[in-house]
Amino acid sequence: MISPLLSNAETQGTLPVFSPIDGAEIARAPETDPALMPEVLARATQAFLAWREVPAPRRGELVRLLGEELRAAKEDLGALVTLEVGKITSEGLGEVQEMIDICDFAVGLSRQLYGLTIASERPGHRMAETWLPVGPVGIITAFNFPVAVWAWNAALALVCGNPVIWKPSEKTPLTALATQRVFERALARFGEAPEGLVQLVIGGPALGEALVASKAVPVLSATGSTRMGAWVGPKVAARWGRAILELGGNNAMIVAPSADLDMAVRAIVFGAVGTAGQRCTSLRRLIVHRSIREDLVARLVKAYASLPIGDPRKPGTLIGPLIDQAARARMLAQLERARAEGGVVHGGMALEGPGAYVTPALALMPSQTDTVREETFAPILYVLTYDDFAEAIALQNDVPQGLSSCIFTLNLREAETFLSASGSDCGIANVNIGPSGAEIGGAFGGEKETGGGRESGSDAWKAYMRRQTSTVNYSAKLPLAQGVRFDV
Amino acid sequence: MISPLLSNAETQGTLPVFSPIDGAEIARAPETDPALMPEVLARATQAFLAWREVPAPRRGELVRLLGEELRAAKEDLGALVTLEVGKITSEGLGEVQEMIDICDFAVGLSRQLYGLTIASERPGHRMAETWLPVGPVGIITAFNFPVAVWAWNAALALVCGNPVIWKPSEKTPLTALATQRVFERALARFGEAPEGLVQLVIGGPALGEALVASKAVPVLSATGSTRMGAWVGPKVAARWGRAILELGGNNAMIVAPSADLDMAVRAIVFGAVGTAGQRCTSLRRLIVHRSIREDLVARLVKAYASLPIGDPRKPGTLIGPLIDQAARARMLAQLERARAEGGVVHGGMALEGPGAYVTPALALMPSQTDTVREETFAPILYVLTYDDFAEAIALQNDVPQGLSSCIFTLNLREAETFLSASGSDCGIANVNIGPSGAEIGGAFGGEKETGGGRESGSDAWKAYMRRQTSTVNYSAKLPLAQGVRFDV
Amino acid sequence: MISPLLSNAETQGTLPVFSPIDGAEIARAPETDPALMPEVLARATQAFLAWREVPAPRRGELVRLLGEELRAAKEDLGALVTLEVGKITSEGLGEVQEMIDICDFAVGLSRQLYGLTIASERPGHRMAETWLPVGPVGIITAFNFPVAVWAWNAALALVCGNPVIWKPSEKTPLTALATQRVFERALARFGEAPEGLVQLVIGGPALGEALVASKAVPVLSATGSTRMGAWVGPKVAARWGRAILELGGNNAMIVAPSADLDMAVRAIVFGAVGTAGQRCTSLRRLIVHRSIREDLVARLVKAYASLPIGDPRKPGTLIGPLIDQAARARMLAQLERARAEGGVVHGGMALEGPGAYVTPALALMPSQTDTVREETFAPILYVLTYDDFAEAIALQNDVPQGLSSCIFTLNLREAETFLSASGSDCGIANVNIGPSGAEIGGAFGGEKETGGGRESGSDAWKAYMRRQTSTVNYSAKLPLAQGVRFDV
Amino acid sequence: MISPLLSNAETQGTLPVFSPIDGAEIARAPETDPALMPEVLARATQAFLAWREVPAPRRGELVRLLGEELRAAKEDLGALVTLEVGKITSEGLGEVQEMIDICDFAVGLSRQLYGLTIASERPGHRMAETWLPVGPVGIITAFNFPVAVWAWNAALALVCGNPVIWKPSEKTPLTALATQRVFERALARFGEAPEGLVQLVIGGPALGEALVASKAVPVLSATGSTRMGAWVGPKVAARWGRAILELGGNNAMIVAPSADLDMAVRAIVFGAVGTAGQRCTSLRRLIVHRSIREDLVARLVKAYASLPIGDPRKPGTLIGPLIDQAARARMLAQLERARAEGGVVHGGMALEGPGAYVTPALALMPSQTDTVREETFAPILYVLTYDDFAEAIALQNDVPQGLSSCIFTLNLREAETFLSASGSDCGIANVNIGPSGAEIGGAFGGEKETGGGRESGSDAWKAYMRRQTSTVNYSAKLPLAQGVRFDV
Repeated sequence: MISPLLSNAETQGTLPVFSPIDGAEIARAPETDPALMPEVLARATQAFLAWREVPAPRRGELVRLLGEELRAAKEDLGALVTLEVGKITSEGLGEVQEMIDICDFAVGLSRQLYGLTIASERPGHRMAETWLPVGPVGIITAFNFPVAVWAWNAALALVCGNPVIWKPSEKTPLTALATQRVFERALARFGEAPEGLVQLVIGGPALGEALVASKAVPVLSATGSTRMGAWVGPKVAARWGRAILELGGNNAMIVAPSADLDMAVRAIVFGAVGTAGQRCTSLRRLIVHRSIREDLVARLVKAYASLPIGDPRKPGTLIGPLIDQAARARMLAQLERARAEGGVVHGGMALEGPGAYVTPALALMPSQTDTVREETFAPILYVLTYDDFAEAIALQNDVPQGLSSCIFTLNLREAETFLSASGSDCGIANVNIGPSGAEIGGAFGGEKETGGGRESGSDAWKAYMRRQTSTVNYSAKLPLAQGVRFDV
Repeated sequence: MISPLLSNAETQGTLPVFSPIDGAEIARAPETDPALMPEVLARATQAFLAWREVPAPRRGELVRLLGEELRAAKEDLGALVTLEVGKITSEGLGEVQEMIDICDFAVGLSRQLYGLTIASERPGHRMAETWLPVGPVGIITAFNFPVAVWAWNAALALVCGNPVIWKPSEKTPLTALATQRVFERALARFGEAPEGLVQLVIGGPALGEALVASKAVPVLSATGSTRMGAWVGPKVAARWGRAILELGGNNAMIVAPSADLDMAVRAIVFGAVGTAGQRCTSLRRLIVHRSIREDLVARLVKAYASLPIGDPRKPGTLIGPLIDQAARARMLAQLERARAEGGVVHGGMALEGPGAYVTPALALMPSQTDTVREETFAPILYVLTYDDFAEAIALQNDVPQGLSSCIFTLNLREAETFLSASGSDCGIANVNIGPSGAEIGGAFGGEKETGGGRESGSDAWKAYMRRQTSTVNYSAKLPLAQGVRFDV
Repeated sequence: MISPLLSNAETQGTLPVFSPIDGAEIARAPETDPALMPEVLARATQAFLAWREVPAPRRGELVRLLGEELRAAKEDLGALVTLEVGKITSEGLGEVQEMIDICDFAVGLSRQLYGLTIASERPGHRMAETWLPVGPVGIITAFNFPVAVWAWNAALALVCGNPVIWKPSEKTPLTALATQRVFERALARFGEAPEGLVQLVIGGPALGEALVASKAVPVLSATGSTRMGAWVGPKVAARWGRAILELGGNNAMIVAPSADLDMAVRAIVFGAVGTAGQRCTSLRRLIVHRSIREDLVARLVKAYASLPIGDPRKPGTLIGPLIDQAARARMLAQLERARAEGGVVHGGMALEGPGAYVTPALALMPSQTDTVREETFAPILYVLTYDDFAEAIALQNDVPQGLSSCIFTLNLREAETFLSASGSDCGIANVNIGPSGAEIGGAFGGEKETGGGRESGSDAWKAYMRRQTSTVNYSAKLPLAQGVRFDV
Repeated sequence: MISPLLSNAETQGTLPVFSPIDGAEIARAPETDPALMPEVLARATQAFLAWREVPAPRRGELVRLLGEELRAAKEDLGALVTLEVGKITSEGLGEVQEMIDICDFAVGLSRQLYGLTIASERPGHRMAETWLPVGPVGIITAFNFPVAVWAWNAALALVCGNPVIWKPSEKTPLTALATQRVFERALARFGEAPEGLVQLVIGGPALGEALVASKAVPVLSATGSTRMGAWVGPKVAARWGRAILELGGNNAMIVAPSADLDMAVRAIVFGAVGTAGQRCTSLRRLIVHRSIREDLVARLVKAYASLPIGDPRKPGTLIGPLIDQAARARMLAQLERARAEGGVVHGGMALEGPGAYVTPALALMPSQTDTVREETFAPILYVLTYDDFAEAIALQNDVPQGLSSCIFTLNLREAETFLSASGSDCGIANVNIGPSGAEIGGAFGGEKETGGGRESGSDAWKAYMRRQTSTVNYSAKLPLAQGVRFDV
């Protein structure tokens, strides 16, 4: 048995699933026939009509129970993440914790979903803005956060009154199936809920296309590559839907002369090699002040040399495998390009044996070349140098992506400037912590080619609702706004 | 002289301008050479770098001065709206008042632009969400609100730290030029501001295309037809921009048995024939309870018969001309289709003489036919009948557009249901007032093919900024979120 | 054993506890020596210094565990409420549910506690408003909600970073002790927390006085009579503390001609006799339109006659005992006064046997007399008559208290007027539901002699924090606000 | 003529007014007979009934006009502030600018006054929180900001729907009269408004007592000494009113080793001697790191020596007179006490001639003595020394007052710690700017003996309104919250 969360049937389908730990096939997941998508969509539409009438705090109770069941299943689900994606144990558990956190948060929201009452300019009139359920939410997720991203979307969508349809990465059907099972436990405790409230479809692009194309899915949340997003965004726009895009990042850290270098080194290493560099918020670029560059690089080279690489289930391992051989090949190719552009590369070697293991790479670059400006989903850290602060900001911003960014400095002026209108142009900007590992309380997402979507905290829930501006005239007169006179 | 707000040069260009009052050419406006658009965009980009650094309350001062100058120019600008668009005097003035109102509102915002401070899960960490200027905002406006829509966008965009580039309808360059002059008066009093902060480009589709296509315009606000929006939305999405779409409406009123019919009649007439039915929020569909239908239609037929139609400058006139002959032809064709579908049409006749004048039409329809489900920008009111309340809501929602809606009822349960999750699916939902004439304090815009954009009040300003989630670690430790352990 | 939640030691102290069910002594609770209050306060102060540094989401975890433990103990704690206060079983459980709800809500808040970032008028300046822990919160509760009110305050106070010190009513020490035990279960699971974070003191007025008088208690939440509040409020003000006062109500319902009378009767009966009329939000005044008065009174007299009175533990019982004989004596005396003022009283008889049981009273009053304008904590419902709507509102508002109010009407205009600036002057105003039974998502509390405090939902949490307005200058210049020049 | 803003009648009453510039009587202001206060209060109550029905944006129009009239009268009113209070010209103008700013801000609020719509736990229920006008607002102001504080309160109160009654300091009746005249200009342009909307009463404590004691004044805003507030707070609490107290400050600056000393010196001098040390936010305590103390004190001594003292109307003057001889006497006495406690005092000498001029004092103290812990309304700056940062914070907080505070540091960790839960305990906390000169966009006020009130920006407007939590049941069922069952 692969996981206590999975039945035999769930591992004996048709879609082969490989563990990156050793590259071996571990199961065959059941696939959803694309021809069934109309039924899936119809079920969601029907579920919506019922679910939108359920009071939000009651909807929150379902999400609360989901949180409880996730707590109960945390070890098992975390282990399955490790098995299917190759994350180290602590990160697998951390991902489930993120699911739990968003559930707690969504429960609180379920008694809020605050709209506004607004002062009207007309006597005897009441103005308000309310937020109402919008309809089924499609969720397309990537392999690297195979379950947390679903939870971010589903917890909010459900509380907001919407069914969800989930299409996980073809590489991670097992964690998706296990999550669906955990949800069903919550559902069983919850009692009555419409059929088709939470659906899972497993398979290839045709399933995603059905979600992208259908008017029955007014909100589509898609996490993945910029290439995927460039296709999804206009498609959804063309059919008047709303896309929540969470696409690529090319996340940098500026290291200023006053930085606490001990902290910086730890943050850099975690940021760049954690999850084997396969987070959308992984650190990919280091912009170091010339005065400390030599020292910092030396420390990093040393630290990199000591990182335990290997089976992510083993205690002590910090770097597990890449998701597959193709990912490793892309990494090695990019390093080749970087060298051709004048880069000096430390590490970045393929390791023997089954599984796409690599040593993480430091690439000291003469400038921000084309290669640096691309996102490679692997543990490559490009190192750039700056002399004055404005140059550092300019380098930081001069890439097409706009997800996450950070600075290490103890200088108040630099820190505040970095966060200001003329600072980082990313959706996330941190000081003295790395670019990854966002808390769920903030809105998560980025600008430019990252796609502009926001998920998780703050008012990200509004993306899952429709806004209604209403004015109620309870007087017996009919004044017009802006003083217009029109006397029939 | 056409208007004290216009110089001779501004009326002696190449683009012919006709007054719908008599269809005569009244001026030739100067046109912007499309080849100059790169310069226009570059100027805006440069202006942005300076303007984003100006403190928001100072930016608000410019908008406050604009409001003052608009107050001073209200009569002149209103008269020009009447001349160029054919609105009656009161509506021309009302439109300028709306510009003034949004300026006042934006001044208040200029000391707010509130982001959030957020409780962090990590000791010694501070989390915040701030809203920062985003860059040049393109504004494409339609003929029917030739100046107010610019003001809605420009007042917010300027306060939010962004330059604007305006492409008005080719049919209304004069009011645009006059508005630009009024703005320049404010600018002169304001003092130092970057060149190119507020630009106006006049001409055909090539100008709009340049705005739609350019990455230099991160936010594009476009008001007009659904057809236009269907082109703009995906284009802007494809280059990672943000579109604020304000497209067509097919706005209905439900009239329930308990309605105050005197009020309803006035609201219907103003809603359907005001601005000659050329508001995006004009009333286009009447969904009447069977028990009162006969009475209501009789009243409407009578009221329609008495409406003063003619020169909009004349005191007492309530219905001016359509914008042009093509608009009239479309109206007449739609009425023909309605008749073919079984509709009984009252009114809807072309009037003789120069100018595209018509008598407004009431079309009693046997059901919600294809013609009813289309927006025709003219004073056609389709009348439908319902028996039970759920049917009324279903009719209301069963059109592709989702802008505005209303109900006349004194019944609390009906009113609240109309505003609830299972009520109207429009962005605007009113009770006992018509669908048009929104106050600027609420967010304006609609769902479905209306495009989903929101302008004006509430937090519509956020669409003109970028959101930054930041975490500042001021401790000397580096804890990871979600309890992840990664000890280098 | 009285309750599985209580140890023997907790029932063998010195403070006699009586069950209103039969008036018999059921335990002797341990008392806190007033001389120990300085130690209690010092412990809280120390706990504060540690607790305020714990991140709010972590504080929320403690409250989440409290919610879990309350779920587990719901039956037992509810039963103890029934035993000690005499509420019927469903209400005892409902009170615990309210504790659970507020815990869930507070957990959500723990990742919010939103302050604002604010646009500054000075370049290179960042403005913000943050909410910070304020210090130990004293909680003085009344017998009628012996545990829920603590939870309302404690859940928010803890999440906000403050220790709490609870002085329950002398009549309900057992439920307080049991609640403290439930909290300790949560604490044990939580792990490290400062000693003295949640303290309970049991005994007489000297304990309350110590809380009221001490600067170590910056926030004092006191629920009880207006008389008590009139003493507490100025005392706390005099030592620069903040009082959250939840005092008496004299809650009315207006019944309009269009009211759904079936619903109204049910709401009236529950509102007036539920909890034997001992809720602060109990319905005490009925303001009925003359046209329906006869009918409504007849229905009420009939409904009152059929109400099952007796042992609150027995299934089917709807009215349990008053808290004690003194309460019953006050009720009977007030009815005597009402009769002397011309009132016609139905019911209001003492029942034989142990326990202060009564039949609920309807008192048809000729006008709003002095007796009507007083709050009597018992099931007396005064019935008044009105002719026009303005009169109804005037009667509603013409009492010294301002807690809760409601109207039954299907008329939109009446409903909205009731909720408007010229409508009810109470903190709570409902339409088509009774005055009691507030959800925790709204702010709870009232105006005038009710004391002005707000607890529970909305931004009531702000009362448990201190507000800090900060401006950070990260530029190298020092501009003054308002353009002041001061050049040294 | 003293001022173009004042008529002869307004300077020929019975209350002698002295200019601190030379101590000479400049006018006799008309006084309000305390016996007339019941009439004043009754007028305000009547005005309230009308004003609360005027839509807020229309109320905002009155405030907008007030802002315009203040702009027009800025020079005159500023000059009168200088004459009556002795502020230098730039500060007199700055005070009027603050009035203008708050008007602009309040105009924006007038289309907001946002309440919340809230998710209800019951089907067919709508929950909301609205903010409604509360009634007449009493405004008691101090001499040092003779007009701005009125504007802070009046602009918000008026927009919120409340009349105001102003009792200015007996020392500054002329600026109050002039302000009332400016308001009347706005009122004349505004058109219809209830009589008694804005009233001014001039005279002694009996007038203030009438406001403090009356239930007709639900909100009382009082600015002045802690002694005054200690009397007002409990009095208002005793009659169930709401007090907004803005009392004394004892504002400190921490100067850390990394501080930009050039900036710090300028901020210190302006903070300590600006307005002759008579701002509630004046800098009174300097907490300097030992390593830079010698340098900083030397710079200050030098800067102090060069400050132009004298007629505040004269260009170049930076320090005008104290308000009167009594103030000077108190200053000198405090310096005597400081010396007795071991303080070494630079400056602090009375200057000859008419008017209570002094040289500002630097008092180098061995520790934070009793004298230091008192607020003296004069230009005394006590200098303390610290060694480690925690000590600096402890010194900062160890005074009874809690208004304003600041730190000069370029060290991010110190700055953030200063703003955190364990940092400054003041209502205002700044970094790299002085304690005074708040922008109107933030909430202004302080903790502890400063009184806890907040005025001006953020949600300070809520203090001028009453909060209503409402639930509307539009279903035909009557579910109870918390799942309570009560089946009649």
